[in-house]
Amino acid sequence: MPIKHQLDVALGERSYPIYIGRDLLGQTQLIRQHIHGSSALVVSNTTVAPLYLARIQQSLASCEIRHDELILEDGEQYKTLAATESIIDLLLRKRHDRRSTIIALGGGVVGDVAGFAASIYQRGVNFIQVPTTLLSQVDSSVGGKTGVNHPLGKNMIGAFYQPQCVIADIGSFDTLPARELAAGLAEVIKYGLIYDADFFGWLEQHIDGLLAGDSELLAQAVLISCQIKARVVEQDERESGLRAILNLGHTFGHAIEAVMGYGNWLHGEAVAAGMMMAIDLSIRHGWIDEQLRARSSALLQRAALPTAPPVEMTPQQFLEAMAIDKKNVGGRIKLVLLRELGSACITDEYDHDKLLQTLAA
Amino acid sequence: MPIKHQLDVALGERSYPIYIGRDLLGQTQLIRQHIHGSSALVVSNTTVAPLYLARIQQSLASCEIRHDELILEDGEQYKTLAATESIIDLLLRKRHDRRSTIIALGGGVVGDVAGFAASIYQRGVNFIQVPTTLLSQVDSSVGGKTGVNHPLGKNMIGAFYQPQCVIADIGSFDTLPARELAAGLAEVIKYGLIYDADFFGWLEQHIDGLLAGDSELLAQAVLISCQIKARVVEQDERESGLRAILNLGHTFGHAIEAVMGYGNWLHGEAVAAGMMMAIDLSIRHGWIDEQLRARSSALLQRAALPTAPPVEMTPQQFLEAMAIDKKNVGGRIKLVLLRELGSACITDEYDHDKLLQTLAA
Repeated sequence: MPIKHQLDVALGERSYPIYIGRDLLGQTQLIRQHIHGSSALVVSNTTVAPLYLARIQQSLASCEIRHDELILEDGEQYKTLAATESIIDLLLRKRHDRRSTIIALGGGVVGDVAGFAASIYQRGVNFIQVPTTLLSQVDSSVGGKTGVNHPLGKNMIGAFYQPQCVIADIGSFDTLPARELAAGLAEVIKYGLIYDADFFGWLEQHIDGLLAGDSELLAQAVLISCQIKARVVEQDERESGLRAILNLGHTFGHAIEAVMGYGNWLHGEAVAAGMMMAIDLSIRHGWIDEQLRARSSALLQRAALPTAPPVEMTPQQFLEAMAIDKKNVGGRIKLVLLRELGSACITDEYDHDKLLQTLAA
Repeated sequence: MPIKHQLDVALGERSYPIYIGRDLLGQTQLIRQHIHGSSALVVSNTTVAPLYLARIQQSLASCEIRHDELILEDGEQYKTLAATESIIDLLLRKRHDRRSTIIALGGGVVGDVAGFAASIYQRGVNFIQVPTTLLSQVDSSVGGKTGVNHPLGKNMIGAFYQPQCVIADIGSFDTLPARELAAGLAEVIKYGLIYDADFFGWLEQHIDGLLAGDSELLAQAVLISCQIKARVVEQDERESGLRAILNLGHTFGHAIEAVMGYGNWLHGEAVAAGMMMAIDLSIRHGWIDEQLRARSSALLQRAALPTAPPVEMTPQQFLEAMAIDKKNVGGRIKLVLLRELGSACITDEYDHDKLLQTLAA
């Protein structure tokens, strides 16, 4: 399976292709055609670098691109401004000019930090994403959100910055822990819930094959997920409205991650529990019925994902953590809720008492 | 003199107006109409805040905008990532949401740091520039360059980020030290040299009145300078080509600033000496004649600006400092040189021996 799918994200002069397939990392030409200068910096982490860095280095060497490497510690707790600075320090020490390309090889954290560094180094250098986890292939691949966390909130520092291309190699799932594959499926299931009832049905049908690592199914799931996200982002690149629906379950989920400590709950796990909370609140408003709760819960459970928040978290902890979400305006907590399967909305017009009931449930 | 001039910088959806006149700071409506949320953060410095902060606070209070203040240390040495972080920390602690507006009240450093913070806080919040120095009114007002210095190079970290509006109050020059007014005139003279022979002639005619603080003349000089910069930036917002001509004298100038220690030579002073070096090198290539050197030197001297680099700087120091300029690509130092009065080009096709002669001269 060489390039299986190519999806073009249409954002005017910032448009770019996503390549999806197996063993794309070894295809020198694929990466070469998107490097415009003569040098590159590969940013990876301590988990991914031993597995895949050599292939990228080989590709770069074979087309005579001068390249350096920076290996970050693995984990959400290293998604910091300090990590961004370490990238910029290296770029300057090694005299990378503004035609240099930063290549992010790893999961969402590597992509977010390296992409943010690319956006601010010399006011912006080229950036290529090589996401190696399911989560990062279906999430960070599309939309250009880059950034780092602040002690007072997740993703509070960052930029919208589009890559030159995304190389999504399904083969990198071979080395992905089962728990991380499942966490990625939480985001895949999200796309069905918010945008595409048929895709949700397809996932119900194929969840076992996906969990078993079937490449064809995984490539298909990555493609559809990226297509849905692209369709949303193309309509609202800078999240002034519609784009926020991609955050189904995320306001609750971010609160779980923040209170439990980043990294203890995987992002996808927190989102899974958060989606069930959003579904609960949507049901309390009479917008969707119990059947959708049952189907969603069953699907998430088959993927071994949590369907409820940690029992020890109090409503007060939720409210405090949710109060500093970026979506909030004028002090009201905005939430993404479901209108029906395949249709979501962002709103602050929900019943606050019902929110308290959901948090207490 | 209320609003004397309004200039619209045409950058598509990122277009914005520049207001030029006396006593604009007290005009509540001017600032009010460009604030879209209900809160603002005014960033200023220890020199400017005692003079003008109260007026802005009064304006914000009178239209019921919740506002906080952050006062940075004054000086180029505080144009750092740490200063940017201090702004972001305050925004988070005071719970500013992404509809908040950052208002930069001060010179270029305040504008660059606050603008950069605005560009990365929650991936971008609104930004209003209130430049209080001549240099910042004619330079940072147009073009959206924001950023901070790195120990290894000036402006190495930053973003292109356009403000909602610029309020250029000529009245703030009343409290501007004569040396800083002169340093600002170096950039004004630059616009004549690179783009507008007539404006250069007008400056020769009116330099004494400008130095004496004539408001009508200063407003006119700010307007023409911003118009020229706008015309250049509108053609090349992200500096892929033409825009680089705005850097006449800056590659040499940045080297002077870096070697002498930021803040010892004012930016405009270093640029003045740098422009004379660029003129020297242009003459050595036979592109312009000695007469332009004489006119430029005379004009800069009337403004009490330096016309040569510090005697203690060696060619080697220049070459090393110039080697990490952002304009460089593939190891070649790019320079802005003059083809004739009112016309500049960016090139690496100059004679390296002649560059050494200029550096040694």
